[in-house]
Amino acid sequence: MKSQQIHLISRPTGLPTADNFKSVEITLPAPGQGEVLVKNTWMSVDPYMRPRMIDRESYIPPFQLDEVLEGGAIGEVIESNNSNFPVGTKVSHLSGWRTSFISDGTDLTVLPDIEVPEQLFLGTLGMPGLTAWAGLTKVIELKESDTIFVSAASGAVGSIVCQIAKLKGCKVIASVGSDEKAEFVKALGVDAVINYKKVDNLTEALEKAAPEGIDVYFENVGGEHLEAALNVMNDYGRIPVCGMISSYNADKPTPGPSNLFFINSKKLTVQGFIVIDYFDCFPEFVAQMANWMAEGKIKSEETIYHGLDNAVDAFIGLFEGKNKGKMLVKL
Amino acid sequence: MKSQQIHLISRPTGLPTADNFKSVEITLPAPGQGEVLVKNTWMSVDPYMRPRMIDRESYIPPFQLDEVLEGGAIGEVIESNNSNFPVGTKVSHLSGWRTSFISDGTDLTVLPDIEVPEQLFLGTLGMPGLTAWAGLTKVIELKESDTIFVSAASGAVGSIVCQIAKLKGCKVIASVGSDEKAEFVKALGVDAVINYKKVDNLTEALEKAAPEGIDVYFENVGGEHLEAALNVMNDYGRIPVCGMISSYNADKPTPGPSNLFFINSKKLTVQGFIVIDYFDCFPEFVAQMANWMAEGKIKSEETIYHGLDNAVDAFIGLFEGKNKGKMLVKL
Repeated sequence: MKSQQIHLISRPTGLPTADNFKSVEITLPAPGQGEVLVKNTWMSVDPYMRPRMIDRESYIPPFQLDEVLEGGAIGEVIESNNSNFPVGTKVSHLSGWRTSFISDGTDLTVLPDIEVPEQLFLGTLGMPGLTAWAGLTKVIELKESDTIFVSAASGAVGSIVCQIAKLKGCKVIASVGSDEKAEFVKALGVDAVINYKKVDNLTEALEKAAPEGIDVYFENVGGEHLEAALNVMNDYGRIPVCGMISSYNADKPTPGPSNLFFINSKKLTVQGFIVIDYFDCFPEFVAQMANWMAEGKIKSEETIYHGLDNAVDAFIGLFEGKNKGKMLVKL
Repeated sequence: MKSQQIHLISRPTGLPTADNFKSVEITLPAPGQGEVLVKNTWMSVDPYMRPRMIDRESYIPPFQLDEVLEGGAIGEVIESNNSNFPVGTKVSHLSGWRTSFISDGTDLTVLPDIEVPEQLFLGTLGMPGLTAWAGLTKVIELKESDTIFVSAASGAVGSIVCQIAKLKGCKVIASVGSDEKAEFVKALGVDAVINYKKVDNLTEALEKAAPEGIDVYFENVGGEHLEAALNVMNDYGRIPVCGMISSYNADKPTPGPSNLFFINSKKLTVQGFIVIDYFDCFPEFVAQMANWMAEGKIKSEETIYHGLDNAVDAFIGLFEGKNKGKMLVKL
């Protein structure tokens, strides 16, 4: 059995390019005792993978050069010597960036028995959905009276944050990077949308959208977005920090906002979090989210690239604003 | 009765200068019914007064031009038509920057009945002491196992933070701006001192002092100190943000650290606070602190300027690193 897989062959400086990656064909052995052969059907590309390409200690080890990349994926067991995973079992796992692989099962999770397209377990019912849900319900406790500002609001996490916040009764201000994305998040029911590429002054745009000030800033971006949020935050505001994508491709240090003193004078709470810490909430999350979806209260948007050969383009596209909702690769 | 008082006559750009202030003599009326005449004996100058000189909405109203400044002070009632404050009563209040004033008593607090020099109620037993104590016990919960980094460690707040942290059993790394101050904080028992003006790379100095990483950064300074702390913080580190003095005199926006993404990847909590919110803890604080002082476990250092005419120099001196411990003006 042949498997195609993508290796990282050099560490990107700035925006990654195709040259940083290489497609490699390997031959898989037959699955041994207790092992299964998994054929991947969908894989995820996510912004957090970019910092993993830097050789630096972090909450997750850096990607190694000349080894296959890793990332969330969905697959189907096509050969099995493990009774926990009979042939035909649909599984989620972190062995993306390859067409198939051998597993002893310890890294596989059988997909929950919910009648939805399987790729949703990489998006709204997977890591991005859990990130949005945990950020609003576990990291902070979102209140009905909150006005919330969401950056990267059309992304996999942001678009779910907007919808959960609306479900909770909040006023939601969304920031996106194109008019098309603005239409998309408007359709999700947000109260105001800012196309940050079209405004001269993000603080003024935010003040106009939220003259009452903002109580929560869901931080996906950093930089100017954080600066504007700090300017417009109300006292005791909360900033769950999910990511800071604006800095991920910086080839030299990019200075932070000049108004961090507002953290002090406005008595703000800035709280970094990583979804891994909330994996034990997955059953609670998935039950809630599946209900919302069944009731039509949460909608999922996907941007799909086709074939492993296009996975690198899909990944780079994350930083070029090419996705609405979850960026996926159909294998 | 004449009173001398200091007015703010122009808003400083950058470091304040004597020209921003004016000394004015006024004549006080005799105290009316229910009123008292207070003669100030000590006044406090504090870094937070600098941002109050900017005409900007904040947790405390900005100082008004051509009006007398305000600030913590200690005084003695020398004429009284109010039985709550007989002649001779020692009081603390916010009507500093003047030699005497008339009060109806609503803004006066009778000094606690503790046998200590009265000016301690402007320092270790006053606002700076409460700030240090609340920051370590209410804003975060300092644990014995914590390694804590304290910036502006020789200041009124920082020097108390260092000592409370040592009392709690923590390893304490202090940053100061002169060798003399380094000697002072060493004598307080801290485990390592960095004279930040003498090191090329604050991050490396901090890593050397705390190879195990830091769990808490008590933020008084901002800028490079925050950047170094973020670099060296352990996962789940906590940053109580008491102030950011490095930016107070900036005459143009000074960019923040370029490594704020560590808030996300290290899952840090950055928590701004203002001592006003902890005034209801004052009795608990003062009982605890007075005990520690009586047992010789907390030492107080003071830097004293003499006379209201030198109050402006004392205030400016705060930003020139001229104080060890509490900066006071003896009237």
